[in-house]
Amino acid sequence: MQRIEHHASLGGKQEVWQHASRSTGTDMKVGVYLPPKALAGEKCPVLYWLSGLTCTEQNFITKAGAQQFAAEHNLIVVATDTSPRGEGVPNDDAYDLGQGAGFYLNATQAPWAQHFRMEDYVVDELPALIEQHFPATQARGIFGHSMGGHGALTLALRHPGRYRSASAFSPIVAPSITPWGRKAFTAYLGPDEAAWKAHDAVQLIASAKEQLPLLVDQGEADEFLAEQLKPELLVAQCNQVGYPLTLRMQPGYDHSYYFIASFIGDHMAHHARALG
Amino acid sequence: MQRIEHHASLGGKQEVWQHASRSTGTDMKVGVYLPPKALAGEKCPVLYWLSGLTCTEQNFITKAGAQQFAAEHNLIVVATDTSPRGEGVPNDDAYDLGQGAGFYLNATQAPWAQHFRMEDYVVDELPALIEQHFPATQARGIFGHSMGGHGALTLALRHPGRYRSASAFSPIVAPSITPWGRKAFTAYLGPDEAAWKAHDAVQLIASAKEQLPLLVDQGEADEFLAEQLKPELLVAQCNQVGYPLTLRMQPGYDHSYYFIASFIGDHMAHHARALG
Repeated sequence: MQRIEHHASLGGKQEVWQHASRSTGTDMKVGVYLPPKALAGEKCPVLYWLSGLTCTEQNFITKAGAQQFAAEHNLIVVATDTSPRGEGVPNDDAYDLGQGAGFYLNATQAPWAQHFRMEDYVVDELPALIEQHFPATQARGIFGHSMGGHGALTLALRHPGRYRSASAFSPIVAPSITPWGRKAFTAYLGPDEAAWKAHDAVQLIASAKEQLPLLVDQGEADEFLAEQLKPELLVAQCNQVGYPLTLRMQPGYDHSYYFIASFIGDHMAHHARALG
Repeated sequence: MQRIEHHASLGGKQEVWQHASRSTGTDMKVGVYLPPKALAGEKCPVLYWLSGLTCTEQNFITKAGAQQFAAEHNLIVVATDTSPRGEGVPNDDAYDLGQGAGFYLNATQAPWAQHFRMEDYVVDELPALIEQHFPATQARGIFGHSMGGHGALTLALRHPGRYRSASAFSPIVAPSITPWGRKAFTAYLGPDEAAWKAHDAVQLIASAKEQLPLLVDQGEADEFLAEQLKPELLVAQCNQVGYPLTLRMQPGYDHSYYFIASFIGDHMAHHARALG
């Protein structure tokens, strides 16, 4: 791992690291915030952030204001890129497919299957690296925004025991029936919709093997709410199977980082409680 | 004035407005944060932010995390662009002259004099617009970063009675003897260095007609500290003439918005105390 950025921030350090990933076969960049206790060598829990469509590791670390709360709760916060990138990596002209739009799964279809293995990267490779190179405990939380909210919910549900806490801002909760999800799943997983259900939070909730208390914030003025996000489907499923969900509809808030920054403190406190 | 962006943020609204400026002869964009009380129609004090080289109105409103403290103290926060911009506006290929580098003064030299009138814009035109269009009191504070720290200090010192509070992050305190300042002043004000002193904070402190308690934060790992910023000159001058200055050297901090976001809460509290 090579450190390519480091900035003092709220008593800790905001760093960006780059490393060759065996999951994606590319160089990956990752933001790592080290709170004061970690800088002093004390082991801290790790909270993984997954960003939305088009984002890199930069959006969250520059705009969310998370460092203040990471310092307060002594959480290491790791912000990944949203896909493999580079000249040899397949892409699409659309903003919602290919580079910047990895959907946090392992693609099975050509031309994506070789590099687009974000699930392996986020769930296995990256935590192993973080826990090797930084003073990190094995207590892990995961959260994200939009496509990254989908990632946080589905990865937590698909990997029981891997995470102690999960939360999401404006998540895509039912990608197998909403347009962004259907387009991405068709490309990455192929036309057989049965395979899609294993990457759809609403479907996964029905057969969940553990219960992590979920916190979800959703802006009521979000331009993608009705067509792409549909939090009411998550609420209905959680109610039906008795899964613990706190969904907060936030009047007036949109899909931007202004929304995330407004409630990031609540999410960090939610994770800090679970991560101890 | 035309509103071109609006986002719910920390219980208030982060907006961006555009208007034709008579000072600069161009369209200017300006970020306006309205705290909860202002949204409810109650008049609030206004804190003006001046950004550094290359910035637009976007840098501060997306990266500084000021909304949280503006909401807490019920301050309207106005973030200007750093210069006039557009096709008919003179420019320079360098990042430190022309568009993005207005230095918050009225240029007297060709080709800059026609449009580069940022002092008139910031001190007179913009406050009049803000006080007309928003629920704003006439209690004004001013702060900024780097070139904008120079702007905040010099405009407060040049216009006694206009501002009740001033502060700066990593300000250019002695532009008439440091490289960024000498280059800009030569272009905008001409080769007669006597004219430069009226736009140099260290020079202005010597003959200040009022005393505003100044708060200045400066990172010790700032890459521009020794050559461009020289806060020790401000300290020496303030000590010599008895001007109240709190300069805080912050170990490990650099020149970035990570530094600003780390101490923005202290600056907002400093202004809130003075603005009442």
